[in-house]
Amino acid sequence: MKKTCLVIGAGAGIGGSVGKKFAAEGYHAALCRRSNIDGLNAMVEDMREAGLSASGHLLNAVEEGALEELVEAAEAIAPIDTVLYNLGAQIGNRSLDETPLKTFELGWRMACFGLFRVAKVLVPLMVERGHGTILVTSATAAMRGNSGQHSHAAAMAGRRLLCQTMNAEYAAQGVHVVHIMVDGAVDAPDTLGKMLGAEQFEALREAKGKDKDGLLLPEKMAETYFHLATQHRSAWSHEIDLRAYSDLAWWNHAVNI
Amino acid sequence: MKKTCLVIGAGAGIGGSVGKKFAAEGYHAALCRRSNIDGLNAMVEDMREAGLSASGHLLNAVEEGALEELVEAAEAIAPIDTVLYNLGAQIGNRSLDETPLKTFELGWRMACFGLFRVAKVLVPLMVERGHGTILVTSATAAMRGNSGQHSHAAAMAGRRLLCQTMNAEYAAQGVHVVHIMVDGAVDAPDTLGKMLGAEQFEALREAKGKDKDGLLLPEKMAETYFHLATQHRSAWSHEIDLRAYSDLAWWNHAVNI
Amino acid sequence: MKKTCLVIGAGAGIGGSVGKKFAAEGYHAALCRRSNIDGLNAMVEDMREAGLSASGHLLNAVEEGALEELVEAAEAIAPIDTVLYNLGAQIGNRSLDETPLKTFELGWRMACFGLFRVAKVLVPLMVERGHGTILVTSATAAMRGNSGQHSHAAAMAGRRLLCQTMNAEYAAQGVHVVHIMVDGAVDAPDTLGKMLGAEQFEALREAKGKDKDGLLLPEKMAETYFHLATQHRSAWSHEIDLRAYSDLAWWNHAVNI
Amino acid sequence: MKKTCLVIGAGAGIGGSVGKKFAAEGYHAALCRRSNIDGLNAMVEDMREAGLSASGHLLNAVEEGALEELVEAAEAIAPIDTVLYNLGAQIGNRSLDETPLKTFELGWRMACFGLFRVAKVLVPLMVERGHGTILVTSATAAMRGNSGQHSHAAAMAGRRLLCQTMNAEYAAQGVHVVHIMVDGAVDAPDTLGKMLGAEQFEALREAKGKDKDGLLLPEKMAETYFHLATQHRSAWSHEIDLRAYSDLAWWNHAVNI
Repeated sequence: MKKTCLVIGAGAGIGGSVGKKFAAEGYHAALCRRSNIDGLNAMVEDMREAGLSASGHLLNAVEEGALEELVEAAEAIAPIDTVLYNLGAQIGNRSLDETPLKTFELGWRMACFGLFRVAKVLVPLMVERGHGTILVTSATAAMRGNSGQHSHAAAMAGRRLLCQTMNAEYAAQGVHVVHIMVDGAVDAPDTLGKMLGAEQFEALREAKGKDKDGLLLPEKMAETYFHLATQHRSAWSHEIDLRAYSDLAWWNHAVNI
Repeated sequence: MKKTCLVIGAGAGIGGSVGKKFAAEGYHAALCRRSNIDGLNAMVEDMREAGLSASGHLLNAVEEGALEELVEAAEAIAPIDTVLYNLGAQIGNRSLDETPLKTFELGWRMACFGLFRVAKVLVPLMVERGHGTILVTSATAAMRGNSGQHSHAAAMAGRRLLCQTMNAEYAAQGVHVVHIMVDGAVDAPDTLGKMLGAEQFEALREAKGKDKDGLLLPEKMAETYFHLATQHRSAWSHEIDLRAYSDLAWWNHAVNI
Repeated sequence: MKKTCLVIGAGAGIGGSVGKKFAAEGYHAALCRRSNIDGLNAMVEDMREAGLSASGHLLNAVEEGALEELVEAAEAIAPIDTVLYNLGAQIGNRSLDETPLKTFELGWRMACFGLFRVAKVLVPLMVERGHGTILVTSATAAMRGNSGQHSHAAAMAGRRLLCQTMNAEYAAQGVHVVHIMVDGAVDAPDTLGKMLGAEQFEALREAKGKDKDGLLLPEKMAETYFHLATQHRSAWSHEIDLRAYSDLAWWNHAVNI
Repeated sequence: MKKTCLVIGAGAGIGGSVGKKFAAEGYHAALCRRSNIDGLNAMVEDMREAGLSASGHLLNAVEEGALEELVEAAEAIAPIDTVLYNLGAQIGNRSLDETPLKTFELGWRMACFGLFRVAKVLVPLMVERGHGTILVTSATAAMRGNSGQHSHAAAMAGRRLLCQTMNAEYAAQGVHVVHIMVDGAVDAPDTLGKMLGAEQFEALREAKGKDKDGLLLPEKMAETYFHLATQHRSAWSHEIDLRAYSDLAWWNHAVNI
């Protein structure tokens, strides 16, 4: 029977690549993002033309009921075996002054509360089925606060420990939560590209090496995401880090955010 | 000139004891709590009768503007040299099902957002004065998620990393933030006592040893809180843990929450 | 061209299973262990009969020059692409009194110094080739000390940070070190089986579930070991944990050692 | 009755300052270091002239029996209430190639094995008396490995987890072990001064601020060391960090070693 991989936050970077990988492995990929319906449709069309099963969904994650309806819609296609929670909350470095209360709250709604809302509706289904995987993309900011990261770090730290509470309570019932700490810049035009601007993004790619693998490549990351979702339950990982070979781990330098 | 120690969350446990310690050392203690105006007044009266300087303030921390007004009121008495952020968000162990969205959000508002709000108004004053201390009482739940602690751990983890972002950005300007990880049960009738009920609380105290020091004693903890606030700026601590000698550290056992 | 996977500590558990996995994927598996030449030969024979490339090597890891010669011997067969450092130093729980100086030192020689010795001779070769993977099996004891684990924890903690120093210095030159924190009991008759005795080991297996997957199954773990060795260099993991679904993470309980 | 504070590693920095602080509080300070008998004698003389109780002891810590005899000698003066284990093992940044096996082993003997040896003879005495404090100066390198720190990090990580094993096993019997993570440069001519050379050391002091408090000041650190040794047993700290206000925490930058 078909099973769904629901990707919450499916842009041209990690989310899209993970969706494609799961679809290529026989899953239905339910891809959702906030905006750019044309880009979303194109991604879904591409996958369908390649013989893969995919659907596109627009989502305003902070809207009441929206995440819950998304889970319902994806379940209606095929049971959700794996969900990738891939919503970010990075807003660049800002002092306390430059971080309004609303911004701080929004970061938490996207990065932490949204995952809790998805878990509230999805975990009971997974427990009933005795199986399910929740992959959570995370960031260095989940591990330690850094200057200017007030909103991002507080939200991501909450997200990380929410993963831990869920494993502590539901792993033995078959629900596998993995906190995937992405500890470096991802080669993603949608997110990093937009944050930096086209020119600076290209300069960074050049600086990171002629083979363009000094940034995290989403399609390579997707291999590890898929591996984690298919680990046998006798040997599950709860936490893993990912970075490019040419990068230092967060515990070795400052500028990673 | 007089200086204020503002205690946000001043019950009969840590908050009250820290307030008394600072008052005994010459500070004005501005004590606030959510309810029990009689208890609050009695605490203030006791301190005044002992020749100490104290004031009482009621506070609904999640109300818009309330924390900000509190800071203003305390500043009006004397500049806030030290603030103790001592609001808890422990609600006992609850499954995902038993944790409504509102509860999860409330936990975050108390444990994480409130500290951010205080920092927004207080840190600029401290930066201007080139000095200030923010003591933050924290819990084991800030370090790792545990079964049933979905709301508490996510909120406390955010609180911890918010302490780190603030130190990273404002320590060099003289603002000292300390994350005090209370890793065990506190001998506090107001909080633990209420959570357990009088009988079970008394049984726990008995079980923990005849000298009643198997639980964390608030007046002894206050010694360390005060020491941290008076560390010379050439040798500041950012993180410290506290537990009773007879207790295991969180990394050594399960039941601590 | 053939490449070698050198397994240092190749018993019937993790080491043997990882060796088989790599051999099945086309590597030459150079398997070494301290004793039981018959068991080692039988393992090599089995693999050869299955058409795989394997060799057996006896090793006294604490002997001067022995690890260095082993690396040389394995290199002579085919360049070492991947080494699995799988020597343990678990001696059960012992008080300070029951841990002689020699025992403490031996634990360090096995768990920490041995890895350093291997790295001293192997890393330069890997740097020259611009590629190489060092997989290091580790234990909960690398993350935190626990009662009775004086020798084990001190040695394993050193091992973990040695992995970190090597990544910090050599990752950008193509050497990938992974610290694989095995956070639970492994279904391995050679190690856990011997430590517990046959009867208690069988009882544990029963207790852990009818499907025998409540213990970490070495052949399933080997899938993740292999995945880590084949991660694209744009997305490397440095630290990962492994445990059975039915087990709690170390940060959630006490008895894990 | 008199009680001894034994300082293992009593140079002109942390060790000497802690010794003086304890002596000023009424302890006998037993000060030992490896060499410079004249400097040691002068330090003891100064203290005696100030009416304090002190003795000087030369020690080659890696020599068989030497640490054990030192403990015996100090006990003979007055029971050891507090020991400060303050031996360092920093040798600057060195690649694997530049770190001979003997150097790696020596680092471990100084930083990790020495503490174990002291604990073997001292903990039983403290358990018998139902009280004792073991203060352990530690370094950023205990928290994470960094380039060039192969020997230092592996040794210090072992030291840290040895502190944790001891607390797990002996805290409930009254033995308080504190891991004091010194996360920055100390204003100590003996150690940092020698490592950098007089000129570069002075330049660093200048760079760190006109008030000379941009480096950790040993006599200020000693206040916290003493506070930790006098915490009431109902509220003990096991781990604490120390750094100058103008410095970043290790999790926020790279160059700290």
